[in-house]
Amino acid sequence: MKTGSRPISNLLIAACTLLLCACGETGQARTAPGITLVIHGGAGTMSRKEITPERERQYREILSRVLESGFAILEEGGGSLDAVEHAIRIMEDSPLFNAGKGAVFTNEGKNEMDALIMSGAERNAGAVASVTTIKNPIRAARAVLEHSQHVLLAGRGAEKFAAEQGLEIVDPAYFFTQRRWDALQKAKEKSSTNPRKDDWKKFGTVGALALDARGNLAAGTSTGGLTNKLYGRVGDSPIIGAGTYANNDTCAVSGTGQGEYFMRNLVGYDVSALMEYAGLPLAEAARKVIHEKLTGLGGRGGIIAMDKDGHIAMPFNTEGMYRGYISTHGEPHVFIYGDE
Amino acid sequence: MKTGSRPISNLLIAACTLLLCACGETGQARTAPGITLVIHGGAGTMSRKEITPERERQYREILSRVLESGFAILEEGGGSLDAVEHAIRIMEDSPLFNAGKGAVFTNEGKNEMDALIMSGAERNAGAVASVTTIKNPIRAARAVLEHSQHVLLAGRGAEKFAAEQGLEIVDPAYFFTQRRWDALQKAKEKSSTNPRKDDWKKFGTVGALALDARGNLAAGTSTGGLTNKLYGRVGDSPIIGAGTYANNDTCAVSGTGQGEYFMRNLVGYDVSALMEYAGLPLAEAARKVIHEKLTGLGGRGGIIAMDKDGHIAMPFNTEGMYRGYISTHGEPHVFIYGDE
Repeated sequence: MKTGSRPISNLLIAACTLLLCACGETGQARTAPGITLVIHGGAGTMSRKEITPERERQYREILSRVLESGFAILEEGGGSLDAVEHAIRIMEDSPLFNAGKGAVFTNEGKNEMDALIMSGAERNAGAVASVTTIKNPIRAARAVLEHSQHVLLAGRGAEKFAAEQGLEIVDPAYFFTQRRWDALQKAKEKSSTNPRKDDWKKFGTVGALALDARGNLAAGTSTGGLTNKLYGRVGDSPIIGAGTYANNDTCAVSGTGQGEYFMRNLVGYDVSALMEYAGLPLAEAARKVIHEKLTGLGGRGGIIAMDKDGHIAMPFNTEGMYRGYISTHGEPHVFIYGDE
Repeated sequence: MKTGSRPISNLLIAACTLLLCACGETGQARTAPGITLVIHGGAGTMSRKEITPERERQYREILSRVLESGFAILEEGGGSLDAVEHAIRIMEDSPLFNAGKGAVFTNEGKNEMDALIMSGAERNAGAVASVTTIKNPIRAARAVLEHSQHVLLAGRGAEKFAAEQGLEIVDPAYFFTQRRWDALQKAKEKSSTNPRKDDWKKFGTVGALALDARGNLAAGTSTGGLTNKLYGRVGDSPIIGAGTYANNDTCAVSGTGQGEYFMRNLVGYDVSALMEYAGLPLAEAARKVIHEKLTGLGGRGGIIAMDKDGHIAMPFNTEGMYRGYISTHGEPHVFIYGDE
């Protein structure tokens, strides 16, 4: 809000912002200005009852590894876009997450993926939607950002562009995993045509945010979408301001959850707008968007968010969210459940 | 901004809002609470030198006809979604606009269309992207809104869904018009691979906003995108909050212009956020989004916007925009140039 027309209210907003304390949620709102990497691997109904100790160990291990290797890029002076792309690429290559190799199946038994990467410096982005043959959709999104005049390419047009850019193209069979196939069969037993409420329980979308040494924010998200989704369904992940957003003046955001609700609520941009126009600090803006606005409309999910000073927030209204951050001290901090 | 945490600043914002006068731009900001229909048929470099009197007459005639027949629906007590769909369908069936029948050609010589319709009451939407065989993409968008759990369907998946819904499917040859084919050849002479700056000069996207007797806002947009665009490129029109937005608490918006800039700026939702969080009245919010924020990033285009009380604004930073409105008095008001 830079209209200059309401100096008194602006001053009041600024004063109130200073008075508002950081969000007290667990595993969140650590204050650590400087280079920072934040990641998520999806939100959902994960609870200690449902996850075996072995599976929990696997998730904690890979989240720590993603944070450490992505942070090394920032420590060496690399850019935030590079760190975000690298972190997401590792998660895409793991069968543990619903992105790349571990993508879920559509109603037609295919794997259709969406991804977006956004630079907070230029507020420019690249995205691909409904792609089936690109090994790393986040790399294709980066190529759209850097080598096209467009923001979003969908379907075979996106695949043709990725091939022209020399990216790795794979047979769709590469994305087959027994676990995801079984999940589709189970979902189909309940409903043959559309995802039902029961199928929304887990959102394995992956995302990353980085703040580099030059003060540039970047955000990225990659997903296989929803198990049993309709052929051609595009969710929030590749939509600027819905599942992903970055703006050096405000914040970077990546979301995971019921994509349709994230799109209708403009979740990513809404955090930024509440900071810019209503003067809220990051933690309060993120809390309001997830716990008041998304929850109020009946949507489920969570976000990771980071402001230009490296403050972070990771609110979610599901039982858990795979998430973590690493900052100037270089120690990865990883969380799964709501009470950590 | 309903946090309840800053009553004094909220009061100041409310007071200042009352003091701010309506935008004084020509052909805009008529105050007419009650049922209202607003439409656009694209912005661009149209000037009196470039448009023949005969062509100008054709545009004014069809814009008036669209307004009158869409308004009849509202007068008979019809809903805002019905009026918006009807208005856009007439423009899709005309070769004069870059939507439906008159859609421009992609770099590969095809017609790929995007459309979205949104209800301000539920803040729910339906959209299709990159469709090539659906006669009226806005009808398919309405079907996604009403008969799927998704918001956005792309490509052949969207076409399959439209066929299942019983919508009219046509041979892609239906969308051939000599005028658009010639425009592609001209664009290709300049650049064989990508739209160039010169190709961004005209944006024939169509859009409509309606406020019905029950106070429900709706917005819709339909487009063929950019002449010579890459295969699979999705623009701002089918993206909630970018080219199209509706929220009964704030406003309805439909845009036309350089889609990538509208997506990066979240143009539609930004008007709403400035009203909700910064307390700006519609005309000031719309002016700021187009003349400060979009222009500041180097983007070109315009919007039509209407608030919940029927106030309207139609700012653009191009030479002209086909636009018009009709309200309680029942007279259509149609404008083309910037000085009307």
